[in-house]
Amino acid sequence: MSEEIDIVDAETEDSGAYTLDRRAVAAILYAVDIEDRAKLVELMEPLHPADIADLLEQINAFDRMRLIRLYDREFDGDILSELDESIREEVIGLLNPEVLAEAVRDLDSDDVVDLVEDLDEPQKEAILGALGDSDRAAVRQSLTYPEYSAGRLMQREVVMAPEHWNVGEAIDFLRNSEDLPEQFYHIVLVDPKLHPVGNVTLGKLMSSRREVLLKSIVEDTFHVIPVDQYEGDVAYAFNQYHLISAPVVDENDRLIGVITIDDAMAVLDDEHEEDILRLAGVGEESRLSDNTFETTKQRFPWLAVNLVTAVLASLVIAQFEEAIAQIVALAVLMPIVASMGGNAGTQALTVAVRALATKDLTGSNLWRVIRREVLVGLVNGLAFAVIMGLVGLIWFGSPALGGVIAAAMVVNLVVAGLAGIAIPVALEKLGVDPALASGAFVTTVTDVVGFFAFLGLAVVVLL
Amino acid sequence: MSEEIDIVDAETEDSGAYTLDRRAVAAILYAVDIEDRAKLVELMEPLHPADIADLLEQINAFDRMRLIRLYDREFDGDILSELDESIREEVIGLLNPEVLAEAVRDLDSDDVVDLVEDLDEPQKEAILGALGDSDRAAVRQSLTYPEYSAGRLMQREVVMAPEHWNVGEAIDFLRNSEDLPEQFYHIVLVDPKLHPVGNVTLGKLMSSRREVLLKSIVEDTFHVIPVDQYEGDVAYAFNQYHLISAPVVDENDRLIGVITIDDAMAVLDDEHEEDILRLAGVGEESRLSDNTFETTKQRFPWLAVNLVTAVLASLVIAQFEEAIAQIVALAVLMPIVASMGGNAGTQALTVAVRALATKDLTGSNLWRVIRREVLVGLVNGLAFAVIMGLVGLIWFGSPALGGVIAAAMVVNLVVAGLAGIAIPVALEKLGVDPALASGAFVTTVTDVVGFFAFLGLAVVVLL
Repeated sequence: MSEEIDIVDAETEDSGAYTLDRRAVAAILYAVDIEDRAKLVELMEPLHPADIADLLEQINAFDRMRLIRLYDREFDGDILSELDESIREEVIGLLNPEVLAEAVRDLDSDDVVDLVEDLDEPQKEAILGALGDSDRAAVRQSLTYPEYSAGRLMQREVVMAPEHWNVGEAIDFLRNSEDLPEQFYHIVLVDPKLHPVGNVTLGKLMSSRREVLLKSIVEDTFHVIPVDQYEGDVAYAFNQYHLISAPVVDENDRLIGVITIDDAMAVLDDEHEEDILRLAGVGEESRLSDNTFETTKQRFPWLAVNLVTAVLASLVIAQFEEAIAQIVALAVLMPIVASMGGNAGTQALTVAVRALATKDLTGSNLWRVIRREVLVGLVNGLAFAVIMGLVGLIWFGSPALGGVIAAAMVVNLVVAGLAGIAIPVALEKLGVDPALASGAFVTTVTDVVGFFAFLGLAVVVLL
Repeated sequence: MSEEIDIVDAETEDSGAYTLDRRAVAAILYAVDIEDRAKLVELMEPLHPADIADLLEQINAFDRMRLIRLYDREFDGDILSELDESIREEVIGLLNPEVLAEAVRDLDSDDVVDLVEDLDEPQKEAILGALGDSDRAAVRQSLTYPEYSAGRLMQREVVMAPEHWNVGEAIDFLRNSEDLPEQFYHIVLVDPKLHPVGNVTLGKLMSSRREVLLKSIVEDTFHVIPVDQYEGDVAYAFNQYHLISAPVVDENDRLIGVITIDDAMAVLDDEHEEDILRLAGVGEESRLSDNTFETTKQRFPWLAVNLVTAVLASLVIAQFEEAIAQIVALAVLMPIVASMGGNAGTQALTVAVRALATKDLTGSNLWRVIRREVLVGLVNGLAFAVIMGLVGLIWFGSPALGGVIAAAMVVNLVVAGLAGIAIPVALEKLGVDPALASGAFVTTVTDVVGFFAFLGLAVVVLL
C-alpha cells in the first residue's frame, strides 16, 4: 500500500474531482480485513465526515459492520448527520451505546433534530437520552414544529441587538459574550417587542466607526421567514434573494431562531433530487445504498401505473385489429407516432414541472406558455410529418400511408404539447406534486391519441 | 386598484409562497398602459431585483419594452444580473445607454463578469466601457479564465492576514481598513508565500481574546479551490463540506480570490436545471421566456434522435410482418413489452445519472449497483410476467400467448436494468454527459429488445 494515496481527489482532471479514490477505499477495506485498527484510523484521519459517510454508503453491509466495529470510539457524530437515511438506522444499531452517546453530544441541536426525526422510537430515545437537559429540551421543542418546516431547519441560538445600539455597543457586547454560536454571519436587530427589523453583517460592523448607528448599516435585502414555512420555499427564498442567513419568527412575528444558507442549500439539493426521481417514477426516498428488495418495492408502483397506461393503449389498438390484419404496415409504423408523442410530451412537461418548481410559471404567463407549447408541437409536428411521410412513402411505396402517418404525427405532437403543459398545471392546482404524476397522464394521452389518430385515419383513408 | 396588494406573497398557504401575485402584475401593467410613471415606480419600489427580473420574464415582449422605457432611470443593475440570458440581451438593447452605464457601475465585478460573458461583442464593449479603469481590468482578467471555471465565480477582493497574527492584530487591521468587501465571512490566513493555510470566521474572531493566535482558532474544515476547477465541482464541494466561503488559488497555490456560498448555490441550481432538462431531451439553455422559434429549435434534435430510435424499432417489427398478419393479437400486445422496458430503463438510468452527478457511484460500488439493477429488473420482470401472462390468457384465451408475453417481459426488464446503469456509466467514462445521451440509447435498447423478444418468441412458440 503506497503512502501517497489521495483519498479524495480534488484535482480538476475532468469529472474525477471529489470522487472517492478506488485504491484508497481498497486500502481502508484491507486494513479492516487484517483488523489493523491503527492503520484504519490513520487512513480515515484526513477524511471529512461527509466523505466517510459516502464511503460507508458505498461499501457493502458486511464491510460496513466490520469497519464500524473496528473504528469504534473514533466514530464522529458528524458522520451520522451526513449518512443517507437508508443506512443511518443500521449504523446507529451497530455503534456501541457509549460511542453513540459521545458522538451525539458533539452535534449542534439542529443536526440532532435532523438525525432523530426519522428514527424509530427506541433509537430516538437512546439518542435524546445521551443529550444534556437543555439540548434535549431544545431538540424536543424543534420536533414540535411540522416536518419539512422552517422550524426544523433553524438554529435556536441567535445573536441579536436592540435596534437603537451603535457599532461600539455591538462590538463590546460580542467581545464580552461567553457563548456565541459556532457559526454566525449577522447580528439581527430587534425592536422592543423582539420583532426583527434588520441584519448587520459582521464585516460591515468591523469596518464601521464606533458611533455609527446599527440601524444605518443594515443590509439592503432583509427577509424574515415564518416558522411554519415549507422548507422548499425557504430554500427558494435563499436562492432568489441571495440570503446568507435569515431570522425566523413565530406567529406573533417574534424572533425565535435563524436559518443559514448551508442548510438552505442542502434543502435545495434534496428538492431537486426529489423532482428528478419523481419525474422518472422512482420513489423519492430511493438511495443508491438501498438493497434489491427496497429498490424493487420503490419501482413497482410506477411500473404498475405504466402497465395500466400501456394496456389502455393496447385496447385502442385492439379496436383496429381488422385494419392491421389487412395492412400489416400499420403495425410496423404505429409505435413511431406514439413514441414521438411521448417524447414531445415529456419535453413539455419537464419544462412545465421545472417552471412550477422555480415559480416562473404563473397566472401572468400561463396562456402565453400554453400557446407556445401548442405552436411548438405544431411546427415540430409538421417537420416530422414531412420526414415520416417520406419514410412511409419510400418504405412502403404508398403515398396514402405516408399521408396518414404525417397527419397523425401533427395531431399527436400538438396534443403532446398541450397535455405536457396543461396536466402539470392542473395537478399543481389540485395540490398534487406535478413531478410525481404528470408523466403517467401525459404518456397515456400521447399513446392513446397516437394510436387512435394513426389507425383511425388509416381506416378512413386506406380501407 | 387597491393599495394593499402584496406583490410577492410570502405567506405559507401551500405552494403560493413567493409566487408573483397576478393582481400585482396586472396593476403594474395597467400603470404601463396609462403611462403613469409615478405609479409604476411606486408599485415596483418594494420589489427585490430578482422579483423584477421574474416579472420581466413573465410578461410579453411588447409590455416589457414599454415597462422598461417608462421605468427608465430607475432601472437597477442587479435586475440585469438576475435576468435569464434569453431576454437579457433584449433588455440591454432597450435601455437608454446612460441608464445602462449607471446600472452597470453599481455592480460587483463578479456580477459584471456573469453579465457580459454571454453577450455579443458590441454589447460587451458598451458595458465594459461604462466601468472605471480598475473594474474593467478586473473584469477582463476574470474573463481570461475558462468559462464555467472557479476563476469566473470568484471575487478578487480577499480579506487575508499573515498566519502569525493574533486576534488583536486582526481586529485592529479590520477596524482600520478603508475598503473591505461588502460581504465577507472569513479572514484567510496565508503563509509568506501567499499560500492559504486556514480560515478564521469573523464570529470566532469577535469572541476570542486579543492575545489568542489566529492559527489556533481556524475552522476545522478548510478547503482550497484551484482556479481552473469546474464550477459544478465547486458547487459540489460547498454542498459536501458545508463551506461558507473558500479561497481560490492559482497554479502556484497562491491565493488569488474567494468564492462564497451564494454563488455556489446558484451554480448548484443551474447544474440541476441542466440535468433535469437534458434528461428530458430539452436543450439545457431552454427558458420559459424563449419564443416559439427558439423552443422548436431546441426540441427538434432530441425528437429527431427519437425518430431514428423509433424507426429502428419499426425495422425490428417489420421482420415479423408475417407473424403479425397471422396473429393480430401480437400487434395489440407488443407495445406493452416495449413500454414497460422503456419505463424500467428510465428508472434505472435516472438513478444512475443522479448518482454520477453526486459522485455516489464509483468503482467501489459499481458492480454491486449493477447486480442490484439486474436483480430488480428480474424480480419486477417476474411480477409483471405473471400479471401480463394472466391478462394475455384472459384477453385472448391463449396460454401460449400469455407465456410468450410473460417471458418477453422478464427478458426486457432485466435488459432495461442492465442498460439503464451500464449506458450512463459508459458515457461518463467516455467524457459524454450521461444526462444528455443516456435516454436515447436506453430507449433504443428496450424498444429493440422488447419487440424482438416478444415477436421472436411468438414465432418460435406460436407458429
